[in-house]
Amino acid sequence: MAIKKKTTIKDIANVLNISAAAVSKALHNDARISDKTKKAVRQVAENLNYQPNHLASALRSGKSKLVGVIVPKTNSNFFSSAIHNIEEGLDKEGYNVIITQSNESFKKECKNIDTLLYLQVDGIIVSMANETVDLEYLEKVKAAGIPLITFDRGENDLNVDYIGIDDYNSSHLIVNHLVEQGCKRIAHIGGYKRTRIYNNRIRGYVDALKKHNLPLDEELLIETNLTIEDGREKMLQLLGLKNRPDAVYAAGDFAALGALQVLNEQNIKIPEEIALVGFGDEPFTAMVTPSITSVNQHAYKIGKIAAETFLDHSKKPNSKQSLNKIILEAELVIRDSSLKKKS
Amino acid sequence: MAIKKKTTIKDIANVLNISAAAVSKALHNDARISDKTKKAVRQVAENLNYQPNHLASALRSGKSKLVGVIVPKTNSNFFSSAIHNIEEGLDKEGYNVIITQSNESFKKECKNIDTLLYLQVDGIIVSMANETVDLEYLEKVKAAGIPLITFDRGENDLNVDYIGIDDYNSSHLIVNHLVEQGCKRIAHIGGYKRTRIYNNRIRGYVDALKKHNLPLDEELLIETNLTIEDGREKMLQLLGLKNRPDAVYAAGDFAALGALQVLNEQNIKIPEEIALVGFGDEPFTAMVTPSITSVNQHAYKIGKIAAETFLDHSKKPNSKQSLNKIILEAELVIRDSSLKKKS
Repeated sequence: MAIKKKTTIKDIANVLNISAAAVSKALHNDARISDKTKKAVRQVAENLNYQPNHLASALRSGKSKLVGVIVPKTNSNFFSSAIHNIEEGLDKEGYNVIITQSNESFKKECKNIDTLLYLQVDGIIVSMANETVDLEYLEKVKAAGIPLITFDRGENDLNVDYIGIDDYNSSHLIVNHLVEQGCKRIAHIGGYKRTRIYNNRIRGYVDALKKHNLPLDEELLIETNLTIEDGREKMLQLLGLKNRPDAVYAAGDFAALGALQVLNEQNIKIPEEIALVGFGDEPFTAMVTPSITSVNQHAYKIGKIAAETFLDHSKKPNSKQSLNKIILEAELVIRDSSLKKKS
Repeated sequence: MAIKKKTTIKDIANVLNISAAAVSKALHNDARISDKTKKAVRQVAENLNYQPNHLASALRSGKSKLVGVIVPKTNSNFFSSAIHNIEEGLDKEGYNVIITQSNESFKKECKNIDTLLYLQVDGIIVSMANETVDLEYLEKVKAAGIPLITFDRGENDLNVDYIGIDDYNSSHLIVNHLVEQGCKRIAHIGGYKRTRIYNNRIRGYVDALKKHNLPLDEELLIETNLTIEDGREKMLQLLGLKNRPDAVYAAGDFAALGALQVLNEQNIKIPEEIALVGFGDEPFTAMVTPSITSVNQHAYKIGKIAAETFLDHSKKPNSKQSLNKIILEAELVIRDSSLKKKS
């Protein structure tokens, strides 16, 4: 493909034998330029297929009408649903959303932040990578003077807006349910403690066991990246214990799926021998056999509130606004993988 | 949150009591500015947390080092895998990828193109929305003088690079397989003919039936949007026929999943009574019961080639390059939903 050179204001100026400055003024409907010249400029611009340089106008106005979103990955139902509702909320107000993904890499997340700042976005909505512990990069966004809104995976320390679910209490919902089903030895395939949401799920798990007077067995608490492969590996590890668990609570649905595959392969009855609970309510949890009990994280609501929070800030840029910390109650969706007692 | 005003060159100029032009020159290491002034400018810039305006530098260099990707949706394994490999290929050469989604809407796709052109991306890689029939908007990209690369859902008429699989032949692979399994009345829940890939799948289905001397029954050929809900609805419609099909080939895995749900709910044996084949090899096809036979579209390879094609163009911007039309052979992944004869 022969790439044509972009038409510039100078090209238009050359055709009409006037100055580039005059062309620019004409295109911006400047009163100092005659209507005749304006018409000629517009005609030539059209003929040459001139694309007005919006970067230049963003430079002038200081508003790009763009909001950047950074997510760990897009092929997760939670993140793609959240993005969908962020887009819907911002679209109404004329904002466009551009998405970047970190692929769970801190380095990539930093690069994404640089890219979005470079593009002069009017705000950034971010859910952090698993790897992210250093928050200095996110401080760059605050320093740039634009709203920074975090969701799901965020950090309270950062002192920015945050929207998420109550992870600590979600673990209580899960453990309460498993205890009700008669489980006594509940394992937790968790995320890494360094990520706040996983830390909260672990704390909730530990405290809920305590509440039910169940002993905390260190063998049964495992930190991992929560991929399908991790779920498989950790399930095999748990099955290798002298004293096997009678329930497994995985902090992510993909890990729960890996565990389910191993249990099915080994003909271990779910939930009779081992009950299983995931987290995230990915659509596949309802499709597999047995269907997997999971936690609905309200992705749609979170996306909607994230968009509204950005709009609030952008409408009152100079007023001192209170930060929003919105914690939604999660919902346990009970399915076959944990339902021993059918009522 | 109190939003701080962005630091501008003018702010720095005010502190030092010099002109904004001098500050700009100092920041660009202009020889006309003394080293002493340069040092002072850099010091103040740092103190005020000045973010250099990259838009301005993009304006000067004409290169943004950004590539825009437009996909119908990100929560599809095919698209997210393709994006992943596009990113990997471009990352090596220092390009950043920004993603926008059309949500299958033509209007949104046009808006995305405008946004990406506005951001001065160095190229656009697009897979079109279901709704898209008017290609004038894509012509804008060509007119802007940057490479336009289409994948999966593209149009040969557009005379741009295209990377996809052989959809026509994929239908042959599917029909051949079903005939081998003893199926004689094969239905097709297809996409809309106006989208080239779905048109090719339909043409392939029709021609493959002919090849096997199977009659084409109009009742068995249905066009739809291929969502789970569409799959459910159309499967019910097919079950309502006097003369039911003994096999269903859905042009998308989500529609195949909807069909599978209905068949399972009605206790119709898969594949014994009705065999089922999907398209796209979404991960859930291997997870459901029975697992669904599907077509692997080589998302990774397509993403990789799309990135390479862009890089080729960007390295030789002014040479007349031949267009790439790369059609990969798809792979039929046979699973339980269609395997009547276990060998």
